[in-house]
Amino acid sequence: MNEKLLELAKRRGIFWPSYEIYGGVAGLYDIGPIGVKIKNKIIELWRKHFVYENSEFVVEIETPIITPYKVLEASGHVENFTDPIVECTKCHNIYRADHLIEEVAKINVEGLPISELNKIIREKGIRCPACGGELGEVKTFNLLFSTNIGPYTGNQGFLRPETAQGMFTSFKRIYEAFRQKLPIGIAQIGRVARNEISPRQGLVRLREFTIMELEFFFDPESDIKPNFDKFGNLKLSILRAEDKEKGESPKEYSIEEILKEKIVANPWMLYWMATAAKFVKSLGINNFYFEEKLPHERAHYSSQTFDQIVVIGDEKVEIAGHAYRSNYDLSRHMKYSGQDLTVFKKYETPKVIKKKIVVINKDALSKYDKDFVKRFMSFISSKSPEEIEELIAHNGVFEEAKIGEFVKILEREEKITGERIIPHVVEPSFGVERCLYLTLLNAYREKGTRIILSLPKYLAPYDVAVFPLLEREELIKKAKEVYELLKGKFDVIFDDSGSIGKRYARADEIGIPYSITIDPQTLVDNSVTIRDRDTWQQIRVNISELESALEKLFKGEEFNKVGKLINSEENE
Amino acid sequence: MNEKLLELAKRRGIFWPSYEIYGGVAGLYDIGPIGVKIKNKIIELWRKHFVYENSEFVVEIETPIITPYKVLEASGHVENFTDPIVECTKCHNIYRADHLIEEVAKINVEGLPISELNKIIREKGIRCPACGGELGEVKTFNLLFSTNIGPYTGNQGFLRPETAQGMFTSFKRIYEAFRQKLPIGIAQIGRVARNEISPRQGLVRLREFTIMELEFFFDPESDIKPNFDKFGNLKLSILRAEDKEKGESPKEYSIEEILKEKIVANPWMLYWMATAAKFVKSLGINNFYFEEKLPHERAHYSSQTFDQIVVIGDEKVEIAGHAYRSNYDLSRHMKYSGQDLTVFKKYETPKVIKKKIVVINKDALSKYDKDFVKRFMSFISSKSPEEIEELIAHNGVFEEAKIGEFVKILEREEKITGERIIPHVVEPSFGVERCLYLTLLNAYREKGTRIILSLPKYLAPYDVAVFPLLEREELIKKAKEVYELLKGKFDVIFDDSGSIGKRYARADEIGIPYSITIDPQTLVDNSVTIRDRDTWQQIRVNISELESALEKLFKGEEFNKVGKLINSEENE
Repeated sequence: MNEKLLELAKRRGIFWPSYEIYGGVAGLYDIGPIGVKIKNKIIELWRKHFVYENSEFVVEIETPIITPYKVLEASGHVENFTDPIVECTKCHNIYRADHLIEEVAKINVEGLPISELNKIIREKGIRCPACGGELGEVKTFNLLFSTNIGPYTGNQGFLRPETAQGMFTSFKRIYEAFRQKLPIGIAQIGRVARNEISPRQGLVRLREFTIMELEFFFDPESDIKPNFDKFGNLKLSILRAEDKEKGESPKEYSIEEILKEKIVANPWMLYWMATAAKFVKSLGINNFYFEEKLPHERAHYSSQTFDQIVVIGDEKVEIAGHAYRSNYDLSRHMKYSGQDLTVFKKYETPKVIKKKIVVINKDALSKYDKDFVKRFMSFISSKSPEEIEELIAHNGVFEEAKIGEFVKILEREEKITGERIIPHVVEPSFGVERCLYLTLLNAYREKGTRIILSLPKYLAPYDVAVFPLLEREELIKKAKEVYELLKGKFDVIFDDSGSIGKRYARADEIGIPYSITIDPQTLVDNSVTIRDRDTWQQIRVNISELESALEKLFKGEEFNKVGKLINSEENE
Repeated sequence: MNEKLLELAKRRGIFWPSYEIYGGVAGLYDIGPIGVKIKNKIIELWRKHFVYENSEFVVEIETPIITPYKVLEASGHVENFTDPIVECTKCHNIYRADHLIEEVAKINVEGLPISELNKIIREKGIRCPACGGELGEVKTFNLLFSTNIGPYTGNQGFLRPETAQGMFTSFKRIYEAFRQKLPIGIAQIGRVARNEISPRQGLVRLREFTIMELEFFFDPESDIKPNFDKFGNLKLSILRAEDKEKGESPKEYSIEEILKEKIVANPWMLYWMATAAKFVKSLGINNFYFEEKLPHERAHYSSQTFDQIVVIGDEKVEIAGHAYRSNYDLSRHMKYSGQDLTVFKKYETPKVIKKKIVVINKDALSKYDKDFVKRFMSFISSKSPEEIEELIAHNGVFEEAKIGEFVKILEREEKITGERIIPHVVEPSFGVERCLYLTLLNAYREKGTRIILSLPKYLAPYDVAVFPLLEREELIKKAKEVYELLKGKFDVIFDDSGSIGKRYARADEIGIPYSITIDPQTLVDNSVTIRDRDTWQQIRVNISELESALEKLFKGEEFNKVGKLINSEENE
């Protein structure tokens, strides 16, 4: 967590540790007024890329955070959603064992079994960092927050660690109510909770956060493939598992190369990774790559995983995970719920298959006594048509009677229009607070002693700030008129407290792209200044043209083409 | 819960019980794709009324659901957030005692103490409705969902039952970062959880739901009063506590009357109740009133409460609560956290107060021995300046020495620029799922065997549906062109599955205001039909004028003035 950004975030109401007056709780943060505005814009941008632009097959739902035991037992989380912990035998501090080893011994032990971690702790002589005491045995700690649902004790539930299970448990209903065909994507944006052992990285490792997930259900054998046209010649930077093991760096691949070389498990997974690349770029972040996880590093449900890793300065942060969950979750829920979660896959043209059937000659059998018939029928029903055919062909007998006398085998044609399949799933999953943190960190600039949050304009908390230059009644009145004028069209903030320099600094620090100042000149010729957040340049325009000037600026027109540049040094 | 609406909601993907494949969990619902769209529009409408239109003093934040023990201990929830329960001694079913009494004995026992409930159960001979067994003693059951934070046992936390405590615990930081003056409103929209004993009313009584709350901090003594101009001559229907006790009905009051008669505890509370009235009307709901709670019916933190009650058919549902929390919460958090949460209230003009001070004559004292001086000073410091003045005036002595010899009283003037106060709080609080349910119920119409969801147009899940009349390639192609044409301007859905009648029915059932159909005539003269959801009337317009025709319709222009009415009976 960048300390300078943290200080700015606290001071400007972007985010801060929760429950500060009680000393705070590790891993819990409040998002302040400025932070909520930026966060909501990031969420809306995600919706645009993942939901709206794919509205022909993606829908959004909302399911509860509280989850019954059975659901997370089925999903494998009760068994597998654990981290290794180790307790000091002397001071009883508890540590996350793998992180402790990584910090002290500087080796990557992600996903190693408990026994290995214990061995390394003994071999390297790792002791308690707090008191130097001896460490106990490494144990697993389940990261699910546990609770009890209702007034009866023993009715255990959890806070969900991902929204995904909400999509899996409601998949059938949504499939029936909507497309009734694959592919179908179900998106959800909501809170999740993970009882991290010692979260210490601000917005990056939280005990409760907002997640944006898409569970995309498809038939891996289908001819319906994603359309990559909209990505143009986008290239993705990927660190493949094999390259990672050799210690190599990420390499750039075109979409065609990735498909051809089957670098990604299936085309739909690639489609959402490409979408994720576009989304992260729209946050203003261009330096990122996809890192393939090694088998032991992957979550229990995943057949292939890529972490999408953003690099800013010396920070490397996973902004998203892309998992190929195959049909793992639906299969497990079928097993645990006893419900049929398959979908009917209709063939393009029905398949015709040949099927052998057994025909009994009742007339011939009626000549024998009842007990014989019973014994014979029991014998026949224990054999397949193929076995009986074989017996007849070899003149087989049953209690000295020829089998061929009583039965014959016929071949019939049967038309099959389709089959029931369990859809496969790929999942892109973003943490919103990480997106917020990385967007802010990426936008953070220093200019002398001043700070500028150089956010993409569409992510700024406000479009425009309106300032009277001085605390004079006629300027304040005019400024309020300008504020009212712009209010419907733009997200505007009015500020008349403190010197103009302080107000510009405040606007820069929360990333407002343009500040409009009403000065004595305004009262003479109805013109105001527009100041650019990043260059501090100012232009002067008439109020009658202000709205269209701002529209042009938001469309990306050059600053000095929208109005006359003026000298403005003295205000900064 | 209206059964017909529930059936529609399940069938059309609006909402349904969560975890259905595992038999469901009482009090937990999924919001489906259509429901999420309407819900998000309701939330945005609330933001418009409560945040955006009051942006000069209202900000929005987001705080965690997981709350440490201390915070909810301070807020009084650990002690008071309880419901009475009673267990059957035979079958061990657990009931909410007050609800059980109300159902069986038909009397209102809201807020009565446990002892009273026990008495009524014995007197009325109420037994277990399931098995007829005898009921045990009534106990209190705390409705907070409990959990443990972090790996150390005993670090209890809860899921928040309201967002409000997030605003109180972060009040000081927001006050400092933003206005640094009162009034200031802090809004939050987020999930809360209440471990209801036996929730059985669908979206009305949930164990987890989304709440929209505003904590509005103000100085009750301040001259800054709300501006009621924007409400015009809005009247509020109010059932006052005294009228309620007499069994009377709500009465209509103008804002002036309410202020004059002090029906509501303070003007800001009324301001937000009027805002809430406007908001509920914007959901299409006009039949509602504010019911004042009797003292024993109020939550522990409230000095005055009004429930805002919506009446639809024979359902009466509380859509919001309006509580005057006074300075209860901030005072409690000051006490429990030891932090100063007061704000400095600057006087318009400094107050000058006269203050008496005690002046010691050191020269006179120096003539006495040290022990005497010690005793004398100890005596003096135990008295107020006024008491000493009195003693001097009456020639009082200390150990036979005249007090007036050693001390005199002077009067000084002191300038006081302000004082520190604990702000008071009013709180309007809405449950989003209740808003959604009531909006849907209010919009639910039947027309013969058909259902129409007659939602306000701005709350509809889609603006427009586009249909090819028949499954013919050239019609589908043309319809897709129309869909693409409208996509950027409106929220459009394309549908080509099933008969046109079925598609109209589907559009009506999810409340899409207008359906556009491409038919053979379109291929001849480029005209399409627009169908009105509520009247089923159709007009025909040219595609080149379609966008402006729709714009006019959304602005409220009359249907038959936008295009030529055509006969369309045969399609329904």
